[in-house]
Amino acid sequence: MSQPLCLENLPRTVELERDGDGRPRLAYIDQRRLPGELAFERTGDWRAVVGAVKSLAVRGAPALGIVGAAAVALWAGNVGAGSPTAGGCWEIPPSFFAELGRVADEVADARPTAVNLAWGVRRLERLAHALAGGAAAPRALADELYDEVKRMEAEDEAVNRAIGAHGAKLLAPGSRILTHCNAGSLGTAFFGTALGIVYAAAAQGKVERVYADETRPVGQGARLTAWELSRANVPCTLICDNMAASLMASGRVDAVLVGADRIAANGDAANKIGTYGVAVLARHHGIPFYVAAPTSTIDPTLPDGSGIPIEERDPAEVLPAPIPGVEVWNPAFDVTPASLITRIVTERGVFEPGKLVY
Amino acid sequence: MSQPLCLENLPRTVELERDGDGRPRLAYIDQRRLPGELAFERTGDWRAVVGAVKSLAVRGAPALGIVGAAAVALWAGNVGAGSPTAGGCWEIPPSFFAELGRVADEVADARPTAVNLAWGVRRLERLAHALAGGAAAPRALADELYDEVKRMEAEDEAVNRAIGAHGAKLLAPGSRILTHCNAGSLGTAFFGTALGIVYAAAAQGKVERVYADETRPVGQGARLTAWELSRANVPCTLICDNMAASLMASGRVDAVLVGADRIAANGDAANKIGTYGVAVLARHHGIPFYVAAPTSTIDPTLPDGSGIPIEERDPAEVLPAPIPGVEVWNPAFDVTPASLITRIVTERGVFEPGKLVY
Repeated sequence: MSQPLCLENLPRTVELERDGDGRPRLAYIDQRRLPGELAFERTGDWRAVVGAVKSLAVRGAPALGIVGAAAVALWAGNVGAGSPTAGGCWEIPPSFFAELGRVADEVADARPTAVNLAWGVRRLERLAHALAGGAAAPRALADELYDEVKRMEAEDEAVNRAIGAHGAKLLAPGSRILTHCNAGSLGTAFFGTALGIVYAAAAQGKVERVYADETRPVGQGARLTAWELSRANVPCTLICDNMAASLMASGRVDAVLVGADRIAANGDAANKIGTYGVAVLARHHGIPFYVAAPTSTIDPTLPDGSGIPIEERDPAEVLPAPIPGVEVWNPAFDVTPASLITRIVTERGVFEPGKLVY
Repeated sequence: MSQPLCLENLPRTVELERDGDGRPRLAYIDQRRLPGELAFERTGDWRAVVGAVKSLAVRGAPALGIVGAAAVALWAGNVGAGSPTAGGCWEIPPSFFAELGRVADEVADARPTAVNLAWGVRRLERLAHALAGGAAAPRALADELYDEVKRMEAEDEAVNRAIGAHGAKLLAPGSRILTHCNAGSLGTAFFGTALGIVYAAAAQGKVERVYADETRPVGQGARLTAWELSRANVPCTLICDNMAASLMASGRVDAVLVGADRIAANGDAANKIGTYGVAVLARHHGIPFYVAAPTSTIDPTLPDGSGIPIEERDPAEVLPAPIPGVEVWNPAFDVTPASLITRIVTERGVFEPGKLVY
């Protein structure tokens, strides 16, 4: 690298904070406006957070875990604990938990594929019920939920740094890495999963270049991965998704690194649409294919990937001006079978896909 | 199909004609404006035709063969035969052939990968030299070249209809076909090569649906193939390039049909970037992969695909607003090895890639 790695240039993606009146609010980067503009949104409205998730203003499985939890904490702090009946009392009314359950369901259902979203929501819901045993006031409970989200943010960075440290061992000096979508700092609270491995390896001087698939139709590679790598001083070349095969055939890819949105018990991994194709190409060219994700991405209730729900999104993402008579198929994810995955890297180490520890 | 095939709705892509004063001009669809607008351009200026080729206003290997020849005919009719010294004489001055050679080289070099462009240009150049033996006047020679281009237009349609007839035999009733880029009527004078097979098979009621890769970065699939199939009443679903693997895994593709820009003697075939990846995916999923092209696409001077020049185009096609520090790789073509091609269909029949007759 001509310039040293510079993670200081990467902003935090999502951060729960308090406004001047002490009310919780979520600060997040509106990723729809990148790479043209680095714009932070701030909201105390849990429904606005649901909207940001649906619109892809915030995306990335680990980030969604935090944001889902944050939405619940915002409801608890600004609605649940803010009502006249709930504000001053020391016993939590049953309606609080009924409403919390409804809010939790709505947040968890905002997007179907990434299991982290529901994981974050249910973590806060479970904590709320556990704390209720101590008969905390709604306000005190809301504060506990706020603190839990802050712990999740810190945990996420620590998990990503562990993924980075484990994964960097897989890469040789001079590595040229292909990635798909954005499993970077922008898809997490900070540091990233697949790109966390890139950053850890780059700090060891091992990364020659990252090739980023542009990742149609939303362009997470072109808009987000390219932007964040360039901010961090990691040499980056953008390609169209359909150029990956040619790039591999030319001998310019030493490893593929991608993230995941949900990993079944057998190691089958759902990730951004196109990931499966890259895995087939990597196998054809004899290139190792690595999946990097926190343990929270593993869904032990699913024996294999066939049960992972695949979100289908608006055709207008693919074809903004419809052509009469032309249909559009727009699945947002695909499933890569464990048989095409060389290793899965979590914060706990490097695993064969069929031998995941979680 | 709910509606019958309707080829009458397809316009002719390129057509040499004469203006009111009898001067030759080329009429062509400006494909950059599709699918929003079907706009015909008309020009007698051979340099404008070179510009249309470079800008992709006209594209598609067989169409480029005709357009290259047309550019030479326009020079001969409007420049070479139009000069005061050349107009009235009955002997062709040596300067005519020197200039013809320079024009031919410039046209042939407008784009490097499709061999048809040079094939069309050299066909006219050879004819001019052959006719010079008869000491025709420049004007008479220009008229002969004009007529030759008109023959090439008619030949192209006949060749495509033969490709369609041969190729349709490869498809079973109810076929769901994946195609990449546009090897359709818009890439030829009329009818198309890969889509020619679709049209021939659709006329036999064999085509259930065509899936069109959008074909980044220029969008020949999204803008041209989808538009032309919808005009012809062939059911069409548009996908992003990175969705092809998932589509195949879901069991919805019975065959892949693509065109070619240059085929080496061993059957290695250059085509639009991304074709090679689709071929790898087809092999992985056990789906036949067919290449359709006229014999004029075969380059017998190249023993294999390693010698095919691959055009690299402007990074702005991929990333219109540059991101500082981010490089772009934008090859316009890739080479699919013969080993991944099930059959090559030409006007002469259906061939194993290694046993091409030309």
